[in-house]
Amino acid sequence: MDTDLNKIPKHLHRSKNPVTEFNKIIIESTYKYAAAYKINFAFYEKDGTKGLDNILETLSYLPDREILTIGDAKRGDIGNTSQMYAQSVFDHFNFDSITVNPYMGFDSVEPFLNYNDKLVFILALTSNPGSKDFEKLKLSDGNYLYQKVIDTIISWNANKNCGLVFGATNLSELTENITAFGELPILLPGVGTQGADLEGVVRTFHSNDNHNFIVNVSRALIYCDSSDSFAQKVSKSILELNESISKII
Amino acid sequence: MDTDLNKIPKHLHRSKNPVTEFNKIIIESTYKYAAAYKINFAFYEKDGTKGLDNILETLSYLPDREILTIGDAKRGDIGNTSQMYAQSVFDHFNFDSITVNPYMGFDSVEPFLNYNDKLVFILALTSNPGSKDFEKLKLSDGNYLYQKVIDTIISWNANKNCGLVFGATNLSELTENITAFGELPILLPGVGTQGADLEGVVRTFHSNDNHNFIVNVSRALIYCDSSDSFAQKVSKSILELNESISKII
Repeated sequence: MDTDLNKIPKHLHRSKNPVTEFNKIIIESTYKYAAAYKINFAFYEKDGTKGLDNILETLSYLPDREILTIGDAKRGDIGNTSQMYAQSVFDHFNFDSITVNPYMGFDSVEPFLNYNDKLVFILALTSNPGSKDFEKLKLSDGNYLYQKVIDTIISWNANKNCGLVFGATNLSELTENITAFGELPILLPGVGTQGADLEGVVRTFHSNDNHNFIVNVSRALIYCDSSDSFAQKVSKSILELNESISKII
Repeated sequence: MDTDLNKIPKHLHRSKNPVTEFNKIIIESTYKYAAAYKINFAFYEKDGTKGLDNILETLSYLPDREILTIGDAKRGDIGNTSQMYAQSVFDHFNFDSITVNPYMGFDSVEPFLNYNDKLVFILALTSNPGSKDFEKLKLSDGNYLYQKVIDTIISWNANKNCGLVFGATNLSELTENITAFGELPILLPGVGTQGADLEGVVRTFHSNDNHNFIVNVSRALIYCDSSDSFAQKVSKSILELNESISKII
């Protein structure tokens, strides 16, 4: 749900709250087929308090809370501060899971992990071009930084609530590292606008007998049509995505 | 301004909005002596929309905008998302500067740097114990990750608006790396509750003829007293901190 007023169908601009009206229709069009809803905090924070209200209103449109909700917030700070971010995303907004940045190390992630009924997706290798700048640096032990991050996260998984973010755009790295993931659930952004190869990703997981993954499609799904009947197109698109995954498996 | 209801003087709980009342008094007690005000977003986000209103109200108590404001938000995401975070902190809240996490690389930081009248403090080596987990890993070229981050940030500084966050708790690393900072302004958390050595930090900068630094003191200053007359104690504390810096210089 990277909802952007400049990208939603024009006719929605006539409604009282175009952002939440759009999100409501997206949820109605997809909830039979979706595994999870990921709310990208940045797109709401830019509108200040109204944006935060829009997150809460959007969550209220989920027909039940059996569907995983992901607070995509990329947070992380010293321990006492991460504690407050955890309260924000888990207590105030009641998300089931969050995305977290590992750069500052264990005490920056621990407050999130202490919520043992919540899932914490920690960035390992991201989908963007900048992943080469630091994540793909080679360490003195021969591993890449993102590999060390993965190994370290496994050692942090005492509450069995760690997950990884692994950009689907990195197919060769995915193939090489999939056995290192252990039991960690993997969140894979990058399919759609960022151009990742859905078939390659699904085949890699399937051929390694690992079905513990969520493919994230944001913009390519929610903005697949800008007409008055975009809801039907979105339904059709997610169904096609699911079918193409089923075919591969 | 890591303002926490559980830590502010008890008598303020009788006021209509204890958080902003406390912040107002802290500002009134310090603005003659402060170089900057750093608002830690986490402590406000945990209260949802009310917290965001409290940030705006707090900023309104600054007697003028000649004093640097730092939006301590540790943001960073793929380019189109960092763009929205930049709009939040720079356009919506109108902070002069922000703290940013470098893990995801250049395109995650670029949208902040594109605001060439704003200052972007990027995490290099942080003040917390977890800094050893990844930031202090040795790379295959013999440098530590945080050193590579510093060198890379210098290459990103085309708009002359990059800064670094360097934890004051890392005094030996500060001494060893200070010549690598070039012209970058340095934000130094860690003095106070986290136990960094103020004198050592100031001497290191001074003896290298580098005066381009801001020492951040949060909890040890704002919670230095919990009585009805805490305002006077806070004034006295910041004045003593400034005098101890002046003496060293």
